Formats: sequence, structure tokens, C-alpha cells
Amino acid sequence: MSTVTASAVKELRERTGAGMMDCKSALVESDGDMDKAIELLRVKGQAKAAKRGERAASEGLVTSYVHHNGRVGVLVEVDCETDFVARNDDFEAFTKDVAAHIAAAAPRYVTEDEVPQADRDAEQKVFQEQAAEEGKPPPVQEKIAAGRMKKWLDEVVLLNQTHVNADKHDGKTIEELRAAISATTGENVVIRRFARFAIGD
Amino acid sequence: MSTVTASAVKELRERTGAGMMDCKSALVESDGDMDKAIELLRVKGQAKAAKRGERAASEGLVTSYVHHNGRVGVLVEVDCETDFVARNDDFEAFTKDVAAHIAAAAPRYVTEDEVPQADRDAEQKVFQEQAAEEGKPPPVQEKIAAGRMKKWLDEVVLLNQTHVNADKHDGKTIEELRAAISATTGENVVIRRFARFAIGD
Repeated sequence: MSTVTASAVKELRERTGAGMMDCKSALVESDGDMDKAIELLRVKGQAKAAKRGERAASEGLVTSYVHHNGRVGVLVEVDCETDFVARNDDFEAFTKDVAAHIAAAAPRYVTEDEVPQADRDAEQKVFQEQAAEEGKPPPVQEKIAAGRMKKWLDEVVLLNQTHVNADKHDGKTIEELRAAISATTGENVVIRRFARFAIGD
Repeated sequence: MSTVTASAVKELRERTGAGMMDCKSALVESDGDMDKAIELLRVKGQAKAAKRGERAASEGLVTSYVHHNGRVGVLVEVDCETDFVARNDDFEAFTKDVAAHIAAAAPRYVTEDEVPQADRDAEQKVFQEQAAEEGKPPPVQEKIAAGRMKKWLDEVVLLNQTHVNADKHDGKTIEELRAAISATTGENVVIRRFARFAIGD
């Protein structure tokens, strides 16, 4: 086992925002491998973030993004637990990333739960009819329809979408980015709501 | 009748944005009185603006305002008829004024027409009961209830609200400011929609 140096712990803390003891044990567990330690902390952080889903997120930031031509604009509210995190630069950067993404990707809902059942049923019907027309056996039809439903949800639901700036965000979904900022800040982070206006909509 | 000078016409054009012939005839009609000519143009402009209410407003600007603490944000779409007006500084300034106003005044609807009938009925019932309890004769009760309904609409409807910056805007309502920018630009101007998010709402 490699020795875990104080400077490695310091670097890991700076890169992840995790606590000193968590960083130390992650480095011990990863045998001093910085990237692996980051991954370990992320997994742990997301586990914690999932637990803390129950805690009240009543602070936060309202952030806007308006395209330079003034024809598309977005307003988004992202909540966290404390005013301290709401004023954190990484948190603010996350809200800006989400606003810019919404402007480009035009999601219709934040979460799958928000999709009205009637809309879901209407899409399901179309996908089933399409699959039936393709003349495959019924079990295959079901699979095709289910696949298309998933694809449709990934298109209209913000959290399911891959961030439009895939280079910067490594092909991560908005939900993955949300979980990451939740892990970094140690708080429950919730994209509460958004509005997107485009001229001529 | 005073002589209408070219410099007076020029000044009036700069102050109102109206056409040269309109400015000249307004100055003739006002006997060279600049303020009166402006008033005449405004009345005419608003008459024109009222007519042009039918014309399609399919261009416009999406503008945002976020309070410096990031706890209140507004997105507003204001439409006009041409891209040319959408890029006009006065038009842009109007949209910014409206966004800042919405942040402070927290209207719930753009127009009276958007107030759901159920909400209107619920308020009306309360006002009638209040008036009845005050023991006035029924016709007076009706008047009191009607007065309170008007007051309530003036509180929740954006166009009815007096701009929060009464010093800058001379106590004008948002509808009056809208009519003025419509007169100045010569186009139908429509506040299409807005969103206002506040942390902890």
C-alpha cells in the first residue's frame, strides 16, 4: 500500500470538495491513485446525495440565459439546502450550464414524473401502432415501442438529456451533472422549475 | 398661426419617433407648442396603436431580470411586428423596464382576460360578503364589492399595475407604457408572457 501524502489529500479535497477524512480513506482505498479516488468519492457522494433527496432544498438560485439575438430565453430555479452553497461558484456555474442547455435543447419537463399521463399514453399508442405496422411478432413490437418511449422521454425530459456541450461535460446527462454538484457541495440539489420562451413559439 | 420651423419638426421627430408629415401637422395644429404637439401625436399614435392591435406581432425580444441576490428572477417575452423594432433601443429599454417591474410587483397575469373565471368568482364572493357585513344598503354593497374587485385586478394584472418606479415613469401603468412604446415605434407591441421565480415560493 502506498503512503497517502498530505499534499495528495489536499489536491483531492480541492478537486472534489469532499471532507478531509473522506479524501484520506478514498486515497487509501485507491492505493494512492488520484483518478480512482475521485471516482470512489463520486460514487459515495452520489449515494449520500440519493439519501439526502429527502432533505429540504429551500435555498437556491434563479438564473437566466438569453441568447445573444434575444429570440430565446430561459429562466431556471435550482435549489439547495443552504445560502452558503447557493453562493458557491461551482453551484452557480452548474445553474448557468443548465440554463444554457435548456435554451439549446428545449426540454418540456424537468423530470419523468412531470410528463402528463395523457401525453405519455398518446405517444405510447403511436409507438405501438408504428411497431405493429412493421410486421414484427407482438413481443418484438412491445420491445420496439418501449425503446421508442424511452427515447422520447430522453428527448423531452431535462434530467434525461445529455448536456448539449458534450465536450465540456463528457457526454453526461443533466441528472449526472446534478448528482455530481450535489456530491461536491454535500447538499441536496434540485432543479425545481424552468421557463423557456422563444419568439415565434 | 406661428411658422413651423424645420428645427421644430426635427426636434419633435427626435422626441416622438413619429413621421415628418405627422410632426409637421401636429405643430401646425398646436400652433407651434412643442408639448401640445407631443400630446397630439401621442393621442394619434395610440389611436393608431389600438387599430394595429389586429396586426400580427410575431417578432420580439425575450428579456430577463435577476435580482442581484439571485433569489428572484423574471423572464418576459415582448412581441412587435418587425425585427427592426425588436432591435430598437427604446423597445429593448421597455422590455427591461417591464422585467424589473415584474420582479418587484409580482403580478400573476398579463391581462385581465387571463384571470381564471373561478378565481374572479372566488374573490367576488369574498368582497360581497365583506360588503354585506359592513351593513350598508345592497346597492352600496355592490359598489363597494365592484371597487374592491377593480383594486384586486389592479394588483394581480400586469397591464393594470402602475410601474414600481413611479418617479421614472410618472405614475404610468404598464399598459400606458406599452401604448407609448407602440406609438413611438409605430408597431403593435404585445407583452406575450412572463415567468417569475422566487426562491421559497
